[in-house]
Amino acid sequence: MGDTTTVADNSSTSTSTSTSISSQVSRLVEQAKELQDLSASLISRTSCEEDSLRQRANSLHSDIQSLLSSIRNSNLDSNHSHKLEEELFKARYILTEGDAGAFLPSKSHGRLLRMFLGPINVRANRKDVQLKVKEEYNTFRDRTAYLFLLFPLLLIVLRSWIWNGCLPALPVQLYQAWLLYLYTGLALRENILRVNGSDIRPWWIYHHYFAMAMALISLTWEIEREPDCAQKQKGVLLFLKWAIMQGIAMLLQNRYQRQRLYTRIALGKARRMDVVWGETAGVEGQLWLLCPILFILQGFEAYVGLLLLQTALVGVISEWQVVTCGILLIIMAVGNFANTVQTLVTKSRVKAKMKKSKSKQELDQGSVKHQ
Amino acid sequence: MGDTTTVADNSSTSTSTSTSISSQVSRLVEQAKELQDLSASLISRTSCEEDSLRQRANSLHSDIQSLLSSIRNSNLDSNHSHKLEEELFKARYILTEGDAGAFLPSKSHGRLLRMFLGPINVRANRKDVQLKVKEEYNTFRDRTAYLFLLFPLLLIVLRSWIWNGCLPALPVQLYQAWLLYLYTGLALRENILRVNGSDIRPWWIYHHYFAMAMALISLTWEIEREPDCAQKQKGVLLFLKWAIMQGIAMLLQNRYQRQRLYTRIALGKARRMDVVWGETAGVEGQLWLLCPILFILQGFEAYVGLLLLQTALVGVISEWQVVTCGILLIIMAVGNFANTVQTLVTKSRVKAKMKKSKSKQELDQGSVKHQ
Repeated sequence: MGDTTTVADNSSTSTSTSTSISSQVSRLVEQAKELQDLSASLISRTSCEEDSLRQRANSLHSDIQSLLSSIRNSNLDSNHSHKLEEELFKARYILTEGDAGAFLPSKSHGRLLRMFLGPINVRANRKDVQLKVKEEYNTFRDRTAYLFLLFPLLLIVLRSWIWNGCLPALPVQLYQAWLLYLYTGLALRENILRVNGSDIRPWWIYHHYFAMAMALISLTWEIEREPDCAQKQKGVLLFLKWAIMQGIAMLLQNRYQRQRLYTRIALGKARRMDVVWGETAGVEGQLWLLCPILFILQGFEAYVGLLLLQTALVGVISEWQVVTCGILLIIMAVGNFANTVQTLVTKSRVKAKMKKSKSKQELDQGSVKHQ
Repeated sequence: MGDTTTVADNSSTSTSTSTSISSQVSRLVEQAKELQDLSASLISRTSCEEDSLRQRANSLHSDIQSLLSSIRNSNLDSNHSHKLEEELFKARYILTEGDAGAFLPSKSHGRLLRMFLGPINVRANRKDVQLKVKEEYNTFRDRTAYLFLLFPLLLIVLRSWIWNGCLPALPVQLYQAWLLYLYTGLALRENILRVNGSDIRPWWIYHHYFAMAMALISLTWEIEREPDCAQKQKGVLLFLKWAIMQGIAMLLQNRYQRQRLYTRIALGKARRMDVVWGETAGVEGQLWLLCPILFILQGFEAYVGLLLLQTALVGVISEWQVVTCGILLIIMAVGNFANTVQTLVTKSRVKAKMKKSKSKQELDQGSVKHQ
């Protein structure tokens, strides 16, 4: 630092160094002030422009909505009004799914995010970042699905192999704590996805709230160690078997989701408007493999719930935890079933409409992004 | 919608309505496309300008650092070099605490945030938003401090009043579940504060990780209901008493923190540069009330931890949870003590330096924002 010329006179060197450092210091101070001004002006300018875009996007969105409803109430012939509606759907799609979508008001952050994170903004402004968040969510689900499969499998194998048919408390509790973390993480991430424009069905988020409650309750649930523990641990064992099936279903679901996302990204790169028309294209076949497995899983979930209730009523284990977990499992099974059926109905209705009108309209309303 | 003039001829009205609606539709489609273009250009322009500011801020920051070290290694007389250093501290303060600070690389998001939220950005770009996040965090702490006081107090009162000296499991477990939520929320929020430029000591975040672990473990800890439960519940009772004291300390800490934040905001509005010099001004007195209470609390925490270990060693309760909670409490007590002492030492060293050199320099390095 400084132009330290090797002069014999020591004091002259020192003076020249001092002057050079002083001038460097004042230059840096100037630069800091300048950068502060530039930053402040960029931030205020940007937020000003964003406000104006926000206003325009909002009013355009409500204009489109009201024109849509007045077309539906008008006495135009159906062919013509279909065409106009389709045009407006396209306009709305450009508005909500394009870059302008960042300036539309986001869905509320939801209670869970506010409870855990406070009022911090978790919305990404750029579409590519939003898609990245979704991709990372899929990776997270993939990773956890393997653990979901591995953890209970290991417990069941060790139980008959080493533990002589009687599960010790600690490994089961570790597994339950992991479940609590997993469901909390999934619920938080899905709330974040919702804020970032994913149209995930609210039920799947509620489902994770119920699962969080169940994991928490099961932690307080005493793991019986008395002589007849094989009898008393029947509930735990059933739950573990259900978890293995759940792991398999998660892996299949993830495969399906991921393929749909990749289709979306690929089409989005090609031409944004085609995304809606094409996104369910390559994955129809997989859905018909996935659905039976989901239904079997839901049946098994309800069966485990009923068995838990039965053990509580017969009086083998009469803790409140058993009853509550039983009820929660039955609620989740029924809710999952209802939502899977709704998804299928919507999908087939959309398909029928596409075939009928060939205009393929309203797919962006009807298509269900999450299963 | 549309200029529906009340003409008798129905078909003519219909035609004019149709034309008007058609033109409105194409106008809205045009507007959507235009808005999409505007948004895309704003986003790309902004990210371009931000990148250039980011680069300049980074290089300025490293220039300041290297000039500081070359001043320290130079043979300038101490008076002169002090002055230059102070100038550079000011420049660095403008850079890091002003609007340009948003363009410096943020602290890494940390493992906990990535575990629970994925790769979403939680950094606010604007200083006022960052301060708002901090204020909301203080409000959250205030609210929870009252609950921290109320919950264990209620349990202790009900125990002798209604439950005949024997705590039932469910209320205690509800309290433990709330503790788990509270510590998880605090840990997440503090990680978010760190990303937003708070210089919270890492220990206080680790402390909440330990507390999370303890709350989770205590959930699996069987609440004894046998005849001599008064004897066996001694540990729980001690823990509840410690929690009451913790609640009082939290309220005092919050008062102290809040006053410092308000001083900061007020000074920040007046003149940003004064913030560093003034921020500990009005609250010195409170610190000398807070510290003895903190030390007593830490002593009590260690005492509860030792008692838990003792009960486990004597063999009254020999579950691993008791031993682990005891060890965790002792670790937290020791860590808290060490960090409180370090904070006090830093504060008094800074004060002595201020008195000695009268130049008040390095306060921005030494002052500890979190206690």
